[in-house]
Amino acid sequence: MPSAPLPDDVSALLAQPNPAVITTVRPDGQPVSVATWYLMDGDRILVNMDEGRKRLDYLRADPRVTLTALKDGDWYTHVSVQGRVVELREDPDLVDIDRLSSHYTGKPYSKRDRGRVSAWIEVERWHGWGAAAS
Amino acid sequence: MPSAPLPDDVSALLAQPNPAVITTVRPDGQPVSVATWYLMDGDRILVNMDEGRKRLDYLRADPRVTLTALKDGDWYTHVSVQGRVVELREDPDLVDIDRLSSHYTGKPYSKRDRGRVSAWIEVERWHGWGAAAS
Repeated sequence: MPSAPLPDDVSALLAQPNPAVITTVRPDGQPVSVATWYLMDGDRILVNMDEGRKRLDYLRADPRVTLTALKDGDWYTHVSVQGRVVELREDPDLVDIDRLSSHYTGKPYSKRDRGRVSAWIEVERWHGWGAAAS
Repeated sequence: MPSAPLPDDVSALLAQPNPAVITTVRPDGQPVSVATWYLMDGDRILVNMDEGRKRLDYLRADPRVTLTALKDGDWYTHVSVQGRVVELREDPDLVDIDRLSSHYTGKPYSKRDRGRVSAWIEVERWHGWGAAAS
């Protein structure tokens, strides 16, 4: 499984608004996955959560995550990354979730009454399949 | 997060050939995810791997997995399950991978020269979003 940095074709695939799934690990070791929006932010991957998510507690206890992005409409082509959350930050003005929402829907995030938290993932390893195979 | 068994509407969603992502945990605790075919097999979820996958070693060391299935064409609707692999079995006649391939592609699996291993996941907890929200 290749180490970072990501090659250009993999970065190009990840730059699209693909369906994606992120997994965190519960303190007892059980992995927990959920669909997510994500956005390449330089070399890091930005995700954003409602402040009430248990996932935040899991990330604070163990920052290791994995994310698989499926090419929209051709999910045989997919990229998985392994890494860790290197920064967790509140998003009081909803700037980050608006970036994510705009990337996926073309519009700001509709739900404005809940606190949000951003997490930036540093990619350590990745693996591509289909048209993203290394 | 509700415990098993799955309600009928969630089972009906999972019965479709949805894009899905499965995550195992490496012995050092790093989660590792990958896109996968899956198939409801009674109350369990069947997945199948090439015999050479490191994922098999991870599963033998720690059977806990999580799987998120995204509704095809409307991935806001998705279901995540947490559970463990309760059975691992070689698939020498490719019966199981053919079931999976037929479910997703309508045809038997094309690659016949590699050993395959089946894993059955027992669902302990699940969470649904969108049209699958509980």
